[in-house]
Amino acid sequence: YGKNTIKFLRLHREGKQHFVKEVEVCAHLRLTSPQEYLEGNNSLVIPTDTIKNIVLVLAKKNGIPSLEQFAIDICNHFMTTFCQVAYVKAYVQEVPWQRLHEDGVPHIHSFICVPDGIRFCEAEQCRNGPLIVFAGIKDLKLMKTTQSGFEGFYKNEHTTLPERHDRILCGELFCKWSYGECKDFDFNCIWKKIRECILEAFAGPPDCGEYSPSYQKTVNCIQMLVLSRVPQVQIIEAVLNNTFYNVVDMKNLGLTNDKEVLVPVEAPYGSCACTLGRKKFFEA
Amino acid sequence: YGKNTIKFLRLHREGKQHFVKEVEVCAHLRLTSPQEYLEGNNSLVIPTDTIKNIVLVLAKKNGIPSLEQFAIDICNHFMTTFCQVAYVKAYVQEVPWQRLHEDGVPHIHSFICVPDGIRFCEAEQCRNGPLIVFAGIKDLKLMKTTQSGFEGFYKNEHTTLPERHDRILCGELFCKWSYGECKDFDFNCIWKKIRECILEAFAGPPDCGEYSPSYQKTVNCIQMLVLSRVPQVQIIEAVLNNTFYNVVDMKNLGLTNDKEVLVPVEAPYGSCACTLGRKKFFEA
Amino acid sequence: YGKNTIKFLRLHREGKQHFVKEVEVCAHLRLTSPQEYLEGNNSLVIPTDTIKNIVLVLAKKNGIPSLEQFAIDICNHFMTTFCQVAYVKAYVQEVPWQRLHEDGVPHIHSFICVPDGIRFCEAEQCRNGPLIVFAGIKDLKLMKTTQSGFEGFYKNEHTTLPERHDRILCGELFCKWSYGECKDFDFNCIWKKIRECILEAFAGPPDCGEYSPSYQKTVNCIQMLVLSRVPQVQIIEAVLNNTFYNVVDMKNLGLTNDKEVLVPVEAPYGSCACTLGRKKFFEA
Amino acid sequence: YGKNTIKFLRLHREGKQHFVKEVEVCAHLRLTSPQEYLEGNNSLVIPTDTIKNIVLVLAKKNGIPSLEQFAIDICNHFMTTFCQVAYVKAYVQEVPWQRLHEDGVPHIHSFICVPDGIRFCEAEQCRNGPLIVFAGIKDLKLMKTTQSGFEGFYKNEHTTLPERHDRILCGELFCKWSYGECKDFDFNCIWKKIRECILEAFAGPPDCGEYSPSYQKTVNCIQMLVLSRVPQVQIIEAVLNNTFYNVVDMKNLGLTNDKEVLVPVEAPYGSCACTLGRKKFFEA
Repeated sequence: YGKNTIKFLRLHREGKQHFVKEVEVCAHLRLTSPQEYLEGNNSLVIPTDTIKNIVLVLAKKNGIPSLEQFAIDICNHFMTTFCQVAYVKAYVQEVPWQRLHEDGVPHIHSFICVPDGIRFCEAEQCRNGPLIVFAGIKDLKLMKTTQSGFEGFYKNEHTTLPERHDRILCGELFCKWSYGECKDFDFNCIWKKIRECILEAFAGPPDCGEYSPSYQKTVNCIQMLVLSRVPQVQIIEAVLNNTFYNVVDMKNLGLTNDKEVLVPVEAPYGSCACTLGRKKFFEA
Repeated sequence: YGKNTIKFLRLHREGKQHFVKEVEVCAHLRLTSPQEYLEGNNSLVIPTDTIKNIVLVLAKKNGIPSLEQFAIDICNHFMTTFCQVAYVKAYVQEVPWQRLHEDGVPHIHSFICVPDGIRFCEAEQCRNGPLIVFAGIKDLKLMKTTQSGFEGFYKNEHTTLPERHDRILCGELFCKWSYGECKDFDFNCIWKKIRECILEAFAGPPDCGEYSPSYQKTVNCIQMLVLSRVPQVQIIEAVLNNTFYNVVDMKNLGLTNDKEVLVPVEAPYGSCACTLGRKKFFEA
Repeated sequence: YGKNTIKFLRLHREGKQHFVKEVEVCAHLRLTSPQEYLEGNNSLVIPTDTIKNIVLVLAKKNGIPSLEQFAIDICNHFMTTFCQVAYVKAYVQEVPWQRLHEDGVPHIHSFICVPDGIRFCEAEQCRNGPLIVFAGIKDLKLMKTTQSGFEGFYKNEHTTLPERHDRILCGELFCKWSYGECKDFDFNCIWKKIRECILEAFAGPPDCGEYSPSYQKTVNCIQMLVLSRVPQVQIIEAVLNNTFYNVVDMKNLGLTNDKEVLVPVEAPYGSCACTLGRKKFFEA
Repeated sequence: YGKNTIKFLRLHREGKQHFVKEVEVCAHLRLTSPQEYLEGNNSLVIPTDTIKNIVLVLAKKNGIPSLEQFAIDICNHFMTTFCQVAYVKAYVQEVPWQRLHEDGVPHIHSFICVPDGIRFCEAEQCRNGPLIVFAGIKDLKLMKTTQSGFEGFYKNEHTTLPERHDRILCGELFCKWSYGECKDFDFNCIWKKIRECILEAFAGPPDCGEYSPSYQKTVNCIQMLVLSRVPQVQIIEAVLNNTFYNVVDMKNLGLTNDKEVLVPVEAPYGSCACTLGRKKFFEA
């Protein structure tokens, strides 16, 4: 049980300059005894209202140096303070405020919301177990208008899809990775580096791109690049929900449409997911 | 990988009377080899477009006698037809069309959408493994305006919640259960019976209700009643996302508010989840 | 300016039986002088926080005998109390709680949310002008699986739609009507009667239905029936946003699909709107 | 009547470099005769499917040099081609794709979706009337963490809001403006200039900001700056839906919270709207 979408803004001031971190926190607990479920005995139950208070107090006391550090703080607090807690999980998601710029000059206290991929993290711990930290990005929508195809696939009597060597590849990406032992990581810096890896692996070189033979292969390229460039990442999961773009057939309208007008097909949408770790791999 | 939100309507006619079943299907596969991820070799990949075609063909050929039977049909088809499929999962969700009535008379071909709890099911199978069938209800919003409290909970310096013995209990319920060996079950009949159990356990007797000492206990009561009344259910998971209603303090407006005007608090919201099986139990 | 989505629950008790009315209110004002916009002079500005307080106090004092009466109460309060108010509009929308029944027996304090068409109303008044009351229903999703066609329409070189005399008609209906002088109307009773008219005009007789040659004609039938049966309605606006269902072409899958499997096309969707009054009419 | 959410992507290639414009179009017509509503006579009705085809054909033939020019093209086409059309309105909204950059180098065919304010426009025309063009921005979320207050407002017995001279100002902005006679405007350039004006008027100088005494005054400042800097704008409407941030009271948690931890209040939310033209003004 727990409290979801605890939303708050942490404002930090350095002189006249302001820094904001608005987050949404979900904190979930499992207790050592299920007596509240079976007997209606609430004596060990930490109310979700108290959970919310604790999250706010930690934000006040510690600030939010990084989402990951804040999630770790929450786990540590519950494990240290309450012996009836058997398991704790903290999920933290950021509202993507960016500092406003006027003619290139950063504004000291004004911000704009720019949701081009949402940063989140998760920390979880079982009593007597290790603290595990995940981080990720979601709602990242990307498109490449060429250098993508899908050919040589399995065919049978239910196949109506034609082979294509030049199509649009468009999708919403979700990536989540786990860190190993988190000794003094600069979580903010690592996250930015991983985001750059994802974009680079998706798009390829800026002057020519790189051919993608399938959504699956693109997902794998993203994972491989992150694992090769960022040693702190142990396992990376990626899900790509893709939107197909159909070239509109304009023959009966008397026109030739050379992939100039395309219609997005939002439902149904395809999805491919893969989890890749060091040395071993899983696929889901 | 797979195809999500394959939406279609299956229309069945008996003389002048029409029957509709509109569903949303997600079908996911895992192949025996990950070569399409690692090498970009698509030769075993069944395109998600083909997956969609197969789902539509099955609907045409078999109809949808029940969501569960249709999900089973999908699993069977993929396991039987494609030896490269290692795992298949089919999720089916219903659009809640109900037959229109005029003065109590059912209309032969007109329907109204009544989303008071969405029915869904899931079937999954690993090669050489058993076929497992789940069913459930989601987005079921319930409220009781008395016979609910929360007292005797754990308190410390972060506790600000007062004890209450008469509050509003309101939440959105998600229930999902698994069946054992599915031999000739009447899935439609069982689902209706479980829905009735859920409502009865939540509300208590119509003339007096039944006191709920916590969301957790209410979740447990629902599970216990379903397990005791419906022998086909093996394990039942329930999640209750609750909305608190705060009694508006009207003292500084010169009024006494005897729980007559309350304001819903939608974020943050509490959540409690429990999974209960026969003989053993888990809590999450 | 004003306050939107003021959400609250009004609980009314008669002995052990409870009655709930949960609503969402938007209250908007225009002041006689725009000095707060031009000069930043706030001396006449009623804070939106105060607007919210007033709405809650009115709910406490008057209850909500009907949405319309409550909207009228809000308008009256602002016009009577604040001479700087030039115009007031109150919108009230209901959360569709329905009493739970167990084996046909109504429960004294348990409710279920059944969103099969949302009731709303609006009252507005200019200083020295009449109080105008609107009521309506929205998000009402209806479908008929036959007795609908679309033929004889205008054709040119951009026409690709075939004529059809047996298609599915499905849409989401929005209706809003105005009352004349509101003397002692039973708003709850009238609203139920209008809802029945809408369903009857959409569906036709339960044993055979009635042929609809277009969405436009169906919209007109609904309006005509309401105006003929409910004398209190002066003008009625109706908007029907329709979802087309395409019969899946299964020829290249080796099957004949006799309108048994259809796929909804949610975007783009068609829309038709008409406003009809007594003696005169407008079309938009 | 008309067709809504006609979504498509217009791809333009210059050598190896690709340019994308993905839009959502709504096109609505009113015919000279309402015979299809009254008599079910469809002979003059242009099917919404044909409307969709025409929009796609225009995109193929003319491309989308600017949203505004494309909306004008749609109006012109319907007015010129169909004498039964009495009125046409075209709304065009952009999906905010931005070119990807790698280390500052623009990518030739990869894009990322960055929804920090959605551009839209509208063109409408009555037969024998002028063509009117509107443009706008919506879903633009802005925040300033100081230089905002609300004082000196009207008070009575329902007032509980305290005066504040240092609060957070946060809101979602909608702006829509009309152009006069559109002779050879560079709509893309004007739109960018207006967006900059909005941000500048909201935030004030980057090194100190500018004090806002109310949401109303901020709305007015935005309008005044746009009107003074952009002569092509005739009338500008602005709506600011604001989210309040409450400073969490931590006294009973033993802490002093100096506006460091704040909780957003998303419902109810305040809203203020103003329409400002040259020489005359309206307020709504």
